[in-house]
Amino acid sequence: MTRQLEIICIGNELLIGKILNTNSQWIAKRATSFGITVKRITVVGDEINEIATATLEALRRKPRFVITTGGLGPTFDDKTLEGIATALKRKTEINKGALKMVREKYEAYAKQGRMETIELTPPRIKMATLPKRAKPLHNPIGTAPGVLTKIKSTFLIALPGVPSEMEAIFENSIAPMLKQEAKDLIFVERSVFVSNIMESTLAPLIDQTMHANAHIYVKSHPKSEEDTPHIELHFSTMAKNSENARTCLQKAIAQLSELIEKNNGKIKTLNHG
Amino acid sequence: MTRQLEIICIGNELLIGKILNTNSQWIAKRATSFGITVKRITVVGDEINEIATATLEALRRKPRFVITTGGLGPTFDDKTLEGIATALKRKTEINKGALKMVREKYEAYAKQGRMETIELTPPRIKMATLPKRAKPLHNPIGTAPGVLTKIKSTFLIALPGVPSEMEAIFENSIAPMLKQEAKDLIFVERSVFVSNIMESTLAPLIDQTMHANAHIYVKSHPKSEEDTPHIELHFSTMAKNSENARTCLQKAIAQLSELIEKNNGKIKTLNHG
Repeated sequence: MTRQLEIICIGNELLIGKILNTNSQWIAKRATSFGITVKRITVVGDEINEIATATLEALRRKPRFVITTGGLGPTFDDKTLEGIATALKRKTEINKGALKMVREKYEAYAKQGRMETIELTPPRIKMATLPKRAKPLHNPIGTAPGVLTKIKSTFLIALPGVPSEMEAIFENSIAPMLKQEAKDLIFVERSVFVSNIMESTLAPLIDQTMHANAHIYVKSHPKSEEDTPHIELHFSTMAKNSENARTCLQKAIAQLSELIEKNNGKIKTLNHG
Repeated sequence: MTRQLEIICIGNELLIGKILNTNSQWIAKRATSFGITVKRITVVGDEINEIATATLEALRRKPRFVITTGGLGPTFDDKTLEGIATALKRKTEINKGALKMVREKYEAYAKQGRMETIELTPPRIKMATLPKRAKPLHNPIGTAPGVLTKIKSTFLIALPGVPSEMEAIFENSIAPMLKQEAKDLIFVERSVFVSNIMESTLAPLIDQTMHANAHIYVKSHPKSEEDTPHIELHFSTMAKNSENARTCLQKAIAQLSELIEKNNGKIKTLNHG
């Protein structure tokens, strides 16, 4: 589907709760800001079959983009490219462009006197071993290249798990693709905080506002218990014209605020988005 | 599969990157500490079909537990129970036990003078409308009960998205089930930080250590770029006897540390787990 993205995060450290999945939030936020819709985020462990299955499932849903994070490094448990190759029924091979990228990194490190050897050891060659017909993406920060391949109308993109490397490849190589896909669509959002009203009382007021304001999505986020109400109301829309979108958001906010005040609720703060 | 858990997090706010998915990390960490293996985390939006599909897919993989978070509240976009009912091909109905829980909450709030009405309005009754044959779980913090149902050998558990409510229901109602399932298994972990050695040089040393120490999993986490090496080595195992497990971990750490020092690496810090 056009403008749709799925994210697959790979790493046992996510499944044991060792780290927070900041990568998926970062990608989701950036992609949404470009007008891309993130449909699903999946986290699986460092197992070829798990990675292959999650990749195949995502491809079958035909999003325009699938981005994976993690598992591109030199160690035995970096299995993303093997998993993707399994999913695509492709063999892996040493990619000349990727090997050049890896070699140049180690040569640069050596010149700076920061490493022990420039030899292309098997773990280093592994980072340049891609599924056939895949394309390496320059990693401006670290060693492992990102990987891009196209399956029918889906771009499948593998990025490293180290956040600075993932973000750098994303900004250089992926953001332009996402922006082009979304064309002139943008995401506009704004939050209003309300108190002295319960979420269960707000519910029909939100319904009423959404029915009167097509394309505006309003979601309530209780910030504490239902009995001491302090609720964030998040208004958002995807639109072609940011000026118009902001006007529409503002109209919905004004309508819902009036309904809330009629029900003795208080509008607490406005967060200009 | 015994001792396996999948987590499904429901909420557009996760897919637009508005919030970090702290709930999945919290559950993953707690469940892992009990000896449960988290196999997959899935994030989908507030759409009945998305929730139903993700639930069905998880059930087909036959984990012992599926825990969902989010979407149990009173607003139109709280669709988890409808999604689960769709997945299970069950109708929803007002659950007497759940309705009693909801009613008692609003009566208690009223006694404390903290709310506008105790009337069981449709949005409030919605929180007590469960898939047939499901069981409500007491929510000690907020209003919406958790929900438990069993499908063949899988327990399907729906928890609220508000972290304090999710955690309270988890500790009261779910943790005992997980502990019983894991029996005497526990998860033991410890980290060692190393410097002056590159991940690509570490890779074969980790392989060697893992081959010599069955059941010990060693994963390297680069904390900065490959050229300024500062790497966390995370050692972990699931074992029946914590004393024995710690001894085995220690042995693996000692072996790998020796290999690292032979390669001019430095052991920087020990984080006692």
